[in-house]
Amino acid sequence: MTRWVRFRAGDGRVGFGVLGANGVLEHNGDVFASAQPTGRSLPSGTFTLLNPCQPSKIVALWNNFHALGAKLGKAAPSHPLFLIKPGTCVIGPGEAIQRPKAYGGKIAFEGELGIVIGRRCKDVSPSEAPGFIFGYTCVNDVTAAEVLNENGDFAQWCRSKGYDTFGCLGPAIATDFDWTHARVITRLDGAERQNYPLSDMILPPAELVSRISHDMSLLPGDVIAVGTSLGLGSMKDGATVEIYIEGIGSLTNTVRAPVR
Amino acid sequence: MTRWVRFRAGDGRVGFGVLGANGVLEHNGDVFASAQPTGRSLPSGTFTLLNPCQPSKIVALWNNFHALGAKLGKAAPSHPLFLIKPGTCVIGPGEAIQRPKAYGGKIAFEGELGIVIGRRCKDVSPSEAPGFIFGYTCVNDVTAAEVLNENGDFAQWCRSKGYDTFGCLGPAIATDFDWTHARVITRLDGAERQNYPLSDMILPPAELVSRISHDMSLLPGDVIAVGTSLGLGSMKDGATVEIYIEGIGSLTNTVRAPVR
Repeated sequence: MTRWVRFRAGDGRVGFGVLGANGVLEHNGDVFASAQPTGRSLPSGTFTLLNPCQPSKIVALWNNFHALGAKLGKAAPSHPLFLIKPGTCVIGPGEAIQRPKAYGGKIAFEGELGIVIGRRCKDVSPSEAPGFIFGYTCVNDVTAAEVLNENGDFAQWCRSKGYDTFGCLGPAIATDFDWTHARVITRLDGAERQNYPLSDMILPPAELVSRISHDMSLLPGDVIAVGTSLGLGSMKDGATVEIYIEGIGSLTNTVRAPVR
Repeated sequence: MTRWVRFRAGDGRVGFGVLGANGVLEHNGDVFASAQPTGRSLPSGTFTLLNPCQPSKIVALWNNFHALGAKLGKAAPSHPLFLIKPGTCVIGPGEAIQRPKAYGGKIAFEGELGIVIGRRCKDVSPSEAPGFIFGYTCVNDVTAAEVLNENGDFAQWCRSKGYDTFGCLGPAIATDFDWTHARVITRLDGAERQNYPLSDMILPPAELVSRISHDMSLLPGDVIAVGTSLGLGSMKDGATVEIYIEGIGSLTNTVRAPVR
């Protein structure tokens, strides 16, 4: 398994490479198509990790785990139910989740697996879909919970989940990742709040990529957040939330109050 | 009033410029920041118009006209109610609206005014907002009507409106456009189906840009589709739909059945 990261070096330069035990082996070219090692490596402590990809959109699933669907009393959907989070919402590991100005309500975390698309795809079959998946990352699909149902006529999915900093991705994109035996673990200020198996997914990655590619073109770097399961909850200002998936790593972000 | 367009020349070259009576005065640089005339002009008939901007997202409003809200029995919202259409849905004048494979249901047109953002903005006030508006274009906010409510638990706004080719923009971006006295006219195979005044808008452009900029960063080229009013309806395969706003021009697209 290879773990790809983007980084900012001490001199401000942004690059990408492969994460190893002692740092990053820098590469150049196109991470999705033609990455070549530069021969340089950056020792740990000399760089900051960034969001590992720059999606044009995050396609975020609702009701895609049996356990949460059962708790909510919702039938398993036959087609992915999703909203779109804009590219402007994305942050990387260690960056602050910024409470929106003029919003004093609950902000929820949702630990999720993210599928990272490697090649533009449209109308692909489930058997073709794995060839369009570059790898997997951790997602915190952050939500301004009280915005969602603020208006009784229209559920505000895109607004409540689309704020800048509400799409946390990272720390790496793991290729050759076997999701079938992995779990998503979410810790809030160190206390475990979610720990669920990805095998409980209703529509698995190949099916999601295939079906969503029939709804819209998916571009390299786009992320499908496969949905969350039991244990999602809210975070107070100053809280630190960690999404951990073995083989991908740990994505940690802290909630920051607006400067008044 | 200046009307900016993007075009593909006869030799395949893509460029942009100002639309005049006899063709396009080509410019180079950044249309939103530093456009300079090249001195070349392209006579009418030697180029094809493209979508006039390439939005990272279209923010599409629901329930933003008093007349349609009253017909639907919905209260006027105090904050914009919107979904996000991805950049991959955008087409320009003359391009085909492609019926999705495996969808045999109704496809609806919605003639709308589109606000084109000229400068990145976040948390701007209504009085600052006009400085971030580059101009205005026509939008056909196309919808796979039967997808929207296919699942009783989750209204599929992003999916039903996000298909490739479902975001028709053009033919031009008009700057210094006075929306207060303009009307949106939609013709289906030549027959007028919508003709409503933009003055009936619930939240006007400066208010929309300000409020949506508090929800997410808006980028140069992003489009806010301000919502539609009475007369929206469905289009059969082969039908031609035209959205016309005086001062902007006529945006015409034809619905195409999938190749089986």
